[in-house]
Amino acid sequence: MRMEEFFHMTTGDGELSYAKNSSVQREALSMNQDILESTIQSLISEQIGLSKGLNIADLGCGVGPAPLTLISLVMEVVQRKCKELKLNNETHHQVSKLQMYMNDLPSNDFNLLFKDLLSLKVLKRKDDGVPLCFVMGVPGSYYDVLFPCNTLHFVHANYTLHWLSKAPPGLYDEQGMSINKRNIYISETSSRPVAIAYRDQFEQDFIQFLKCRSKEVVTNGSMLLTLRGRPCSSDSFTWTSFEFKIFIKALTCLVSEGLINEEMLDNFDFPCYFANTEELESIVKKEGSFEFEISRTMVLDIAPEVEDKWERAQIISNFIRAFSESLVSRHFGEDIVTPLYDKLIYYAFQHLDHAQPAQNHAVTVLLRKK
Amino acid sequence: MRMEEFFHMTTGDGELSYAKNSSVQREALSMNQDILESTIQSLISEQIGLSKGLNIADLGCGVGPAPLTLISLVMEVVQRKCKELKLNNETHHQVSKLQMYMNDLPSNDFNLLFKDLLSLKVLKRKDDGVPLCFVMGVPGSYYDVLFPCNTLHFVHANYTLHWLSKAPPGLYDEQGMSINKRNIYISETSSRPVAIAYRDQFEQDFIQFLKCRSKEVVTNGSMLLTLRGRPCSSDSFTWTSFEFKIFIKALTCLVSEGLINEEMLDNFDFPCYFANTEELESIVKKEGSFEFEISRTMVLDIAPEVEDKWERAQIISNFIRAFSESLVSRHFGEDIVTPLYDKLIYYAFQHLDHAQPAQNHAVTVLLRKK
Repeated sequence: MRMEEFFHMTTGDGELSYAKNSSVQREALSMNQDILESTIQSLISEQIGLSKGLNIADLGCGVGPAPLTLISLVMEVVQRKCKELKLNNETHHQVSKLQMYMNDLPSNDFNLLFKDLLSLKVLKRKDDGVPLCFVMGVPGSYYDVLFPCNTLHFVHANYTLHWLSKAPPGLYDEQGMSINKRNIYISETSSRPVAIAYRDQFEQDFIQFLKCRSKEVVTNGSMLLTLRGRPCSSDSFTWTSFEFKIFIKALTCLVSEGLINEEMLDNFDFPCYFANTEELESIVKKEGSFEFEISRTMVLDIAPEVEDKWERAQIISNFIRAFSESLVSRHFGEDIVTPLYDKLIYYAFQHLDHAQPAQNHAVTVLLRKK
Repeated sequence: MRMEEFFHMTTGDGELSYAKNSSVQREALSMNQDILESTIQSLISEQIGLSKGLNIADLGCGVGPAPLTLISLVMEVVQRKCKELKLNNETHHQVSKLQMYMNDLPSNDFNLLFKDLLSLKVLKRKDDGVPLCFVMGVPGSYYDVLFPCNTLHFVHANYTLHWLSKAPPGLYDEQGMSINKRNIYISETSSRPVAIAYRDQFEQDFIQFLKCRSKEVVTNGSMLLTLRGRPCSSDSFTWTSFEFKIFIKALTCLVSEGLINEEMLDNFDFPCYFANTEELESIVKKEGSFEFEISRTMVLDIAPEVEDKWERAQIISNFIRAFSESLVSRHFGEDIVTPLYDKLIYYAFQHLDHAQPAQNHAVTVLLRKK
């Protein structure tokens, strides 16, 4: 089964949903608000008289506060800029319309996203010289072409491009045996070929992403991409995030309890890769369609305001569950889901109790189409 | 609460879902396949060299076989026509892309619609000179502007425009009392003002629909609209469909059993209207943006192939339930849903047992933007 047929953030708006457990993703968006604003403002200034209006795509948009905040932010920036231009020049041609394309895999909870749109006051259309905003849902993988040629002025992708199109095939030898046994990602006990397999799959996918977008994005159009990543100058052979460290502990514990068998664990590989900005820059140069304009690495704490360690461990487990549940239930079966994430609370607590940080590294790059 | 916040066909793909109980809607689409094909073919011929590609909207698309069949049909017609043009003229500019906008209220089951798209082979993109097809979801009411100006070449709306934007306010007197007590639509016992209230609301809504589309549809673009309706030259003061006749019997029975109170029934009004082609023509002329090109009235039997009357009555009840359940549960509460549609099976059986027909009248009009 292809990723696009099953992979999704946890649906709905219940306690365990992605919508309720994506404050880190929402926070990353806020931290890049400055780049978002200046990019959109300069797009409007440069392309003023855009007779076709401004077309913006949010790729891998998900659901919940992050995509809603994005739509609100974009609308506010566009409205402000348009009013400002109108004040300065009565006869200018301003942006006549704004189209926002919200993309994700077909298994994303678009029903909830569309329902949430009803609450967005900024979408109420007023006749005060600001452009109408049309929001559309675009189901499909961003590793494929999603839009007609030269359609998009701005592409946004928040906390999504670290997901690979599939687990790296290089993780299995010629006999089909895992070369990364008892691991689910690159770890301290992984061999070099494991890190290379992940790195190769990421490069292949990211190049495919850039190639598809290079058709769709107009010349001088921009892309603001925020990915889970790692610190600058860190080594992909040794670096891994704290979530994977506690995740593998929880899975190993279930193996020792006989709830899952060892072979199933050996064959479970997280289809993601945590790049740093240097790697991203090198791939962007190699592909060649886009200029590398800005990059930044951010560190986001998960629920740092929560003092109670058990409570915070629960939040961390829910955060991880919201993005990994569809992978886990497909590979290990539905029955394992609750025991696994219960264990994860325990290991998250242990992690916090050793005064270790619960951090997400996020890397942001702003690219411009040549 | 506005219609767009709750109104929807029954979601999912279970036995009682709209997806599983919309064969009549699918059948109506097939009966108009000839008009659909010739309209799209002539749009491509006339507008050949369409540098922006062909943009098609399915308004009130719903979910299940009808929208999927539409997408397949459109793709096949476009591909066939493009190949034919290519054969005739090696150097022509053919349609470079096809955009299909699937619109419905935000409460429609877009998740299922998008999941179903994965199964459509026609969407697989080939490099054989046929245009790429991009399918997007557009949540919102078609009684509002949904697309930028001059965007659409062809608008399709199947079995949806008989739904009003709200129940006619004219059904209540100055004291807020219903003037159509113990009825849910125009019936033989309704007074003239009841029929006038429904007719006025329909005219107001249909004009609003035409005004919105007149902005969005390009000159010479077409709209193929199929509505629930009534026979030509029938009288709106007396004509009502068999479904409403049995529906009111089932509701009245629940009142007599004490399951719902009389006042609740008095205040329940079906927000729809069954026009005939003469009425449609007169409103289109009055609004003035579109030419009336073709009209036809069709009669569709519900499950005529099913000989067993109980079985057929069950199908009829499910058919009615699939479009009315969201209205019923909101007005009378969830608890009433199962008893009501169980009663409906009985009255549908009684209706069939009296050798009365179980027919849907559908009216189709083809309009062209002036």
